[in-house]
Amino acid sequence: MPQPPNQSPSPRCQARRQQILDAAAACFAREGFHGASVALLSKTAGMSPGHIYHFFENKEAIVAALIERRLERSLEVARQFESAEDIFQAMIERVDLGLNEKTDPSNAALELEILAEAARNPRVAVLVQKADTVRRARFQKLIQRARQARGGDGGSDAAVTEVITALFEGLAARTISHPDLDRDALMPVLRAALQALI
Amino acid sequence: MPQPPNQSPSPRCQARRQQILDAAAACFAREGFHGASVALLSKTAGMSPGHIYHFFENKEAIVAALIERRLERSLEVARQFESAEDIFQAMIERVDLGLNEKTDPSNAALELEILAEAARNPRVAVLVQKADTVRRARFQKLIQRARQARGGDGGSDAAVTEVITALFEGLAARTISHPDLDRDALMPVLRAALQALI
Repeated sequence: MPQPPNQSPSPRCQARRQQILDAAAACFAREGFHGASVALLSKTAGMSPGHIYHFFENKEAIVAALIERRLERSLEVARQFESAEDIFQAMIERVDLGLNEKTDPSNAALELEILAEAARNPRVAVLVQKADTVRRARFQKLIQRARQARGGDGGSDAAVTEVITALFEGLAARTISHPDLDRDALMPVLRAALQALI
Repeated sequence: MPQPPNQSPSPRCQARRQQILDAAAACFAREGFHGASVALLSKTAGMSPGHIYHFFENKEAIVAALIERRLERSLEVARQFESAEDIFQAMIERVDLGLNEKTDPSNAALELEILAEAARNPRVAVLVQKADTVRRARFQKLIQRARQARGGDGGSDAAVTEVITALFEGLAARTISHPDLDRDALMPVLRAALQALI
């Protein structure tokens, strides 16, 4: 049953929702947002179109949920760093978290599809920008704490956060343009960049 | 008239071709590759559809030409650095070249649309990847020369080139997610990143 917004959905409902989002992520990455029909989504998810409409009003509501899920994953990474004793050290050690996520081919394709859609659809743009504001504030706080602990200077925390974000988000673009890129070789260079900036 | 491949097109032909590519760049950025019909292109370019088909067999041929033009622009920047006495200094001084190009909203939208299309269309993927191979080799050579002159070490030239490219390409993604980003504040941070990596 559809859930009123303030009531926690049942685990079964949540699982169904995730199942639809996984199918949608795969379809949007492969076919693009406009190329992926609800019929295709329903086939990929193994559910009837009626069932999908029961959870999501339309494709845009699915994109909204995917953007939300993408934000949740970023915040999960932020939480991991926040709970570390030495934030900077944790960021340096777990540079693979960002690297692996951004260079995963399906994830990179979905990422670029969401951004391309945001560039042409003002409603999706608002969702992407709102999520980015939340993510950015959280990471800026983290980077600020890490920089204070290191006594670093040079560049505002906001600008440093922006450049580090660009660095990781750019890896998704690189994965499309250069699928054979040597991920292992990138690690020390990413670490050197973080070390210089934070 | 259509030109055989080995014959230089007349200036007038070239101007017409550019006119179509400018219109296509605007339409693809705004409507997406699939949303932009040849009818819309023709209206935007102020030419008949027949005229457009005279220059380009189909929309994919236009995308190919846009990818080629994007490569040409990158190589133009590479040439500018190649002719500098101190390559590293030139790159540091002209960090605005990459910054301004990547954070131009229409250019960012087109960039993401091309990459999203490459992620789902193997023919476009081949074109993007071929162009990237040419661009990458050229910039890797430049970065190698700059690093040799500076006596720098740490990370292979290939990995450093990849990370610097990710950094700039990521700025296009940032422009969509954070349109109000403070471009001026990014300059010193980008310079610090280049200084640490090259």
